[in-house]
Amino acid sequence: MTDRSAADLVERAAGGDRGAIARLLSVVERGGDGARAALAALGSTPPYAHVVGITGAPGAGKSTLTGALVGALRSSGTRVAVIAVDPTSPVSGGAVLGDRIRMQVHEGDPGVYVRSMASRGAAGGLARSTPQAVRVLERAGFDPVLVETVGVGQSEIAVSAAADTTVVVVNPGWGDGVQAAKAGLLEVADVFVVNKADRPGADEAVRELESVVGQPALGDAAPGSWRPRVLTTVATEGRGVDGLVAALRAHREHLEATGQAVKRRERRIRGEVRGMVLEALAARADAVCEGPGFDSVVSQVAAGSLDPYTAARGLLTPDR
Amino acid sequence: MTDRSAADLVERAAGGDRGAIARLLSVVERGGDGARAALAALGSTPPYAHVVGITGAPGAGKSTLTGALVGALRSSGTRVAVIAVDPTSPVSGGAVLGDRIRMQVHEGDPGVYVRSMASRGAAGGLARSTPQAVRVLERAGFDPVLVETVGVGQSEIAVSAAADTTVVVVNPGWGDGVQAAKAGLLEVADVFVVNKADRPGADEAVRELESVVGQPALGDAAPGSWRPRVLTTVATEGRGVDGLVAALRAHREHLEATGQAVKRRERRIRGEVRGMVLEALAARADAVCEGPGFDSVVSQVAAGSLDPYTAARGLLTPDR
Repeated sequence: MTDRSAADLVERAAGGDRGAIARLLSVVERGGDGARAALAALGSTPPYAHVVGITGAPGAGKSTLTGALVGALRSSGTRVAVIAVDPTSPVSGGAVLGDRIRMQVHEGDPGVYVRSMASRGAAGGLARSTPQAVRVLERAGFDPVLVETVGVGQSEIAVSAAADTTVVVVNPGWGDGVQAAKAGLLEVADVFVVNKADRPGADEAVRELESVVGQPALGDAAPGSWRPRVLTTVATEGRGVDGLVAALRAHREHLEATGQAVKRRERRIRGEVRGMVLEALAARADAVCEGPGFDSVVSQVAAGSLDPYTAARGLLTPDR
Repeated sequence: MTDRSAADLVERAAGGDRGAIARLLSVVERGGDGARAALAALGSTPPYAHVVGITGAPGAGKSTLTGALVGALRSSGTRVAVIAVDPTSPVSGGAVLGDRIRMQVHEGDPGVYVRSMASRGAAGGLARSTPQAVRVLERAGFDPVLVETVGVGQSEIAVSAAADTTVVVVNPGWGDGVQAAKAGLLEVADVFVVNKADRPGADEAVRELESVVGQPALGDAAPGSWRPRVLTTVATEGRGVDGLVAALRAHREHLEATGQAVKRRERRIRGEVRGMVLEALAARADAVCEGPGFDSVVSQVAAGSLDPYTAARGLLTPDR
C-alpha cells in the first residue's frame, strides 16, 4: 500500500465508510509495510475515545455482557465499537469464532462496529495490534471502544495497560479473595461486575470483593483516588447494565477531573510502542529458532553436549 | 558462581541435598552468569523425569488436586517434585503466595519437593526458567515432576509444550464445548479432570468433554493415538485421585511405547532454547524501552508527530 492510498483509506474510514474501516483494521493487524503506511497516515491525533477493557475467566458471560452494554450505550446515542480478542487455537493457527456479540447487535446499525482479532500467542492474550485497531476505530468516530479479552492472569494486566477503564467480570462462587489475588485481578480492575447475579452466592461474592477493594494497599491512597466499584448484573436479561454504563461514565469523569486521563493515554502509548518493539524482536526469535541451524543446536542439547543457555547465545550471536 | 562451585552444587543436589536443590533452583531462576554455569554443570543427560503439567482456570481446585496427587504418588514410593507457578502481581512485582500444596504434604518428607516460581509476566503464564527448574529436579531424582500453572488460553499451550503429559482441570458447569475451545484447552489436554464432581452438572461436563475429545480432528488420527481421558475427582476428599495416577501412568506408557516420549522431550528442548532466545531479546526490549530516549519517543507519538511503528523501528535501529 502506498502512503497516498493509506491516507485515502484513513480519510474514508474517518468518514464512517465501513469497508474502509474493515480494510484498515486488516492492514494494521497484518503488520509490515502496509501497517507502517496506515499508522503514519493515522498519526495519533485526537479525538481520543474512552477505551474500556472487559476481561475475566472463560464462561463468565463477558460476550453477553458486552452485547448488552452495546445496546445500553446505543440507546443513549453513543457510537460504540467492540474489539473481541479470541485466543488462538495452537493447532489450527486460526481464531476460534467465539464472537457472540454481533448476534445481539441490531444488524445494519451504522453506530456499532464489532471486530474479532486473534491474539496469535501474544503475551497477555491481547492481540499485538489491538492498540492500532483502537486508533482506527477512534479515528472512525467510535467512542467508547470496548476491548473484550478472555483469560486470567497476564491478560488483565495487558488489557488494563491498553485501556482507560478496566472491567473485570466474575461470577458468584467464582472464588475467594485469594483466588482473585492469584489471578492478578484486584490491582487492575476499575469496575468489578458479578455477572449471573441471579445464581446463589452473588451477595457473598460482592461482599468478598468489597472487602478486598476496601484495602488501601490495593488502591491509590491519594485523595480523590478511585475505589473500584463492585456491581451485579444478569447480562442475559439486561439487568444491572445501566448501572455499568453509569460506572463507566463515572470512571471516565474521574479520569478527566484528576488529570489521569492524559497519564493513562500516555501509558497506552508506552505500551503500544513497547509492543511494537517486542513484535520486531519476536520476529527475530522466529527467524533464529527455525531451520537446520536450530535443529542442530536442539540435537546437541538433547545429546547433552550443549547447555540451553549457551545454545541460545550462540543462535543470537552470528548477526549481532 | 564459578563453574567449579556450580558442578559441586549439582553434585550435592543430585545426592538429594535439599539446601543444594533450593540454591540451584534460585540460581537458574535468577538467570545470568550463575544460571549459565549451573546449566553447563547440569547438562541435559538422563534420567528424564515424567513432566506432568496441571492447568486450568483459577478456583478449579488445581492446588488441592495437586496436593492429593502428591499423596497418592508418595504412597506408591515415588519421589515427587512440584513446581507451582504463580502469576505475578503487576503492582508489587512479587509472587502471590497461592501455594496450598505444601500445606497438604507431610512436613519433612524427603521424597517430596515443592517450589513456587513467579511467572513475572512471561508469555503464557509459565515462568521462563521452568524448564531449567525441571532439569534441576530431574537431576535430584524426582520423578514425576508436576508443574502447576494458573490460567487459560496461552498458559495451557506453554505448559503443554514444557510437559510430557498435560492435565486440564475443569469444574461442573465450567462451560460448554465452545468455551473449552475458546480457552484453547481441547488441543493440549491429555487428561481432563472434572474436579468438584460432587457438584451438580458433573455428568453433563463429562458428557460434553467426551463428545468433544471424540472428534477425530482434535486428536492424532494415526493408529495407536491417544484419546484424551476424561476423569472425575473430588480432590478435597481424595476421591478419583487414584484414577488420575493410573491415567498419568497409562499416558506415560503410551508415550514410551509409541516413541513419542523422545519427540516430546525434543519438543521440550526446542521450547526451552526458544524461551532463552526470547528472554535474551526481551532483555533488549527492556533496555530499549526505558530512559530519556524512550520518553522522548513516547512524547512525540503522543503529540502526533511520530507514529508508533516508526518509533519502534527507531528505538531498535541504533545498535542493530
